[in-house]
Amino acid sequence: MLAVRLADGTVSVVNQPRPRRPEGFARIRVLYGGICNTDLELQRGYYGFRGTPGHEFVGEVVEADRRGLIGERVVGEINLACGHCEYCARGLGRHCPRRTVLGIVRHPGAFSELLTLPEENLHRVPREISSEHAVFVEPLAAACEILDQARIPAGARVAVLGDGKLGLLVAQVLHVEGAEVHQYGRHKEKLGIARAAGIETRLATPKKLPRAEYDWVVDASGSGAGLEQAVTMTRPRGTVILKSTVHGLVRVDTAPVIVNEITLVGSRCGRFEPALKLLRRHKIEVQPLISEILPLDKAPLAFRRAATRGALKVLLHA
Amino acid sequence: MLAVRLADGTVSVVNQPRPRRPEGFARIRVLYGGICNTDLELQRGYYGFRGTPGHEFVGEVVEADRRGLIGERVVGEINLACGHCEYCARGLGRHCPRRTVLGIVRHPGAFSELLTLPEENLHRVPREISSEHAVFVEPLAAACEILDQARIPAGARVAVLGDGKLGLLVAQVLHVEGAEVHQYGRHKEKLGIARAAGIETRLATPKKLPRAEYDWVVDASGSGAGLEQAVTMTRPRGTVILKSTVHGLVRVDTAPVIVNEITLVGSRCGRFEPALKLLRRHKIEVQPLISEILPLDKAPLAFRRAATRGALKVLLHA
Repeated sequence: MLAVRLADGTVSVVNQPRPRRPEGFARIRVLYGGICNTDLELQRGYYGFRGTPGHEFVGEVVEADRRGLIGERVVGEINLACGHCEYCARGLGRHCPRRTVLGIVRHPGAFSELLTLPEENLHRVPREISSEHAVFVEPLAAACEILDQARIPAGARVAVLGDGKLGLLVAQVLHVEGAEVHQYGRHKEKLGIARAAGIETRLATPKKLPRAEYDWVVDASGSGAGLEQAVTMTRPRGTVILKSTVHGLVRVDTAPVIVNEITLVGSRCGRFEPALKLLRRHKIEVQPLISEILPLDKAPLAFRRAATRGALKVLLHA
Repeated sequence: MLAVRLADGTVSVVNQPRPRRPEGFARIRVLYGGICNTDLELQRGYYGFRGTPGHEFVGEVVEADRRGLIGERVVGEINLACGHCEYCARGLGRHCPRRTVLGIVRHPGAFSELLTLPEENLHRVPREISSEHAVFVEPLAAACEILDQARIPAGARVAVLGDGKLGLLVAQVLHVEGAEVHQYGRHKEKLGIARAAGIETRLATPKKLPRAEYDWVVDASGSGAGLEQAVTMTRPRGTVILKSTVHGLVRVDTAPVIVNEITLVGSRCGRFEPALKLLRRHKIEVQPLISEILPLDKAPLAFRRAATRGALKVLLHA
């Protein structure tokens, strides 16, 4: 089968054997995969990753222990948890210390004709959601994770810093949930997508960001400077939610965090259920987030396109 | 009257006029003042401070609008709030954006024979608390602030990083409140104070700190490296409470904060009531925290002593 291979910063497409299917796992034919910033970071050499990347996907089950799954269109939670530890018992397999992670940590990813995942990780995709849109379940779940971690009161003013893929999903989720969202970004066109969804936007350079104006700020800037900017925008006793993984050391002045007693909340993957519900009800606009769809064998080009300034989601079609 | 003056890094004792007493303010004869790390930072030039420092004190009211206050032994909350803004309305005058702060921001401090404070800032000191111990109400309130900000379950294991004055108070407060406290520090003698109070202690260099072991970690290390160390010690979905104001930029790797969805909570001053209650019931040992008591006119020496490695609280006796 065809699969993307990432090694030493180079993306290639190789022919390799079909993956073995362990007990309790399903074999899935991938329909679409989405290139995420994390994939670009893997390419840049973080985590010393070698192998098949890809963790955003929609596919069709071709083999499974549970017969009812076969032929179903599914998305899959990306963390493969041990099922026995304290975190797994708390329903937090996403934090299982023994987990592997689809396309990130010791489990081959979705940029491939076939992948395997535990059947319990899979969610059927309702027919109201097209396959192109179903690829967004995983990043949308990451946006929805904020709702599980922070109790943002209805009507609260929330600043979202950054107008990239994740920022645009976060802003929409919070807007749908009833917050008064102000999205700050540096790209007119990207902010236009938020505006079309009814969100207030502010084209702003870092120097023009407001000071101490919000009780809630989400940093989805993807930049090392985002944390400091988010803290500056936050009112005393306010909360900053950190959605941007930035590699390497970030410099931050902790004095305002302490003096103003600000809470910072790290936020990563989320449950799929709320994301599926939002997409099924067409509450979130993902179509404008698709920059381009390329076939799997054009993966090297797709990675280049995804890394272009101004690009949003690039999909691979297997 | 005698007052300490801090300017351009130099501590001196000067003779100056008694402070004016505005309406609603009490004039207080200072009995004892305590030198805090913040005072040493003011001396190092942070905030460009010039004037009389000191915000930990106990004194006797000599003049006031409310007659009943006269002759009373009092401690005083250090933030002078406007009383009209949203924060004041929420009982959070400590975050009033128009506040001045005793001995820190535009209000002369307690290292002086007399000071003035709004009468509403004052708390009578119960007779069960000696004057030397009453000086600890302010820093103890800062330690108790953690209880107002974080709901630490009874019996939870909490690591306290740092064995300085604040770390020793924090560890005792959490211990009294029923947490299983492990205090990490680098000074055998200081840790001995915690051990005598029934707290488990660990003499540890930064390299020997445990990884991902605690759901709750308090950084009272007073060091720029403390935040990173605290994050490393915290389990997924755990909480780090930041009690150390460190000036300048701190370098931190935010990736583990996000991947492990850690919450960081900045924590500063607290309400005086819980601190007074703990001291009145003799629940907290503060006597061993007193390194030395010097008269007000020896303030330059007292500041040098307070800055000595191994020193704990140095008191000024007015």
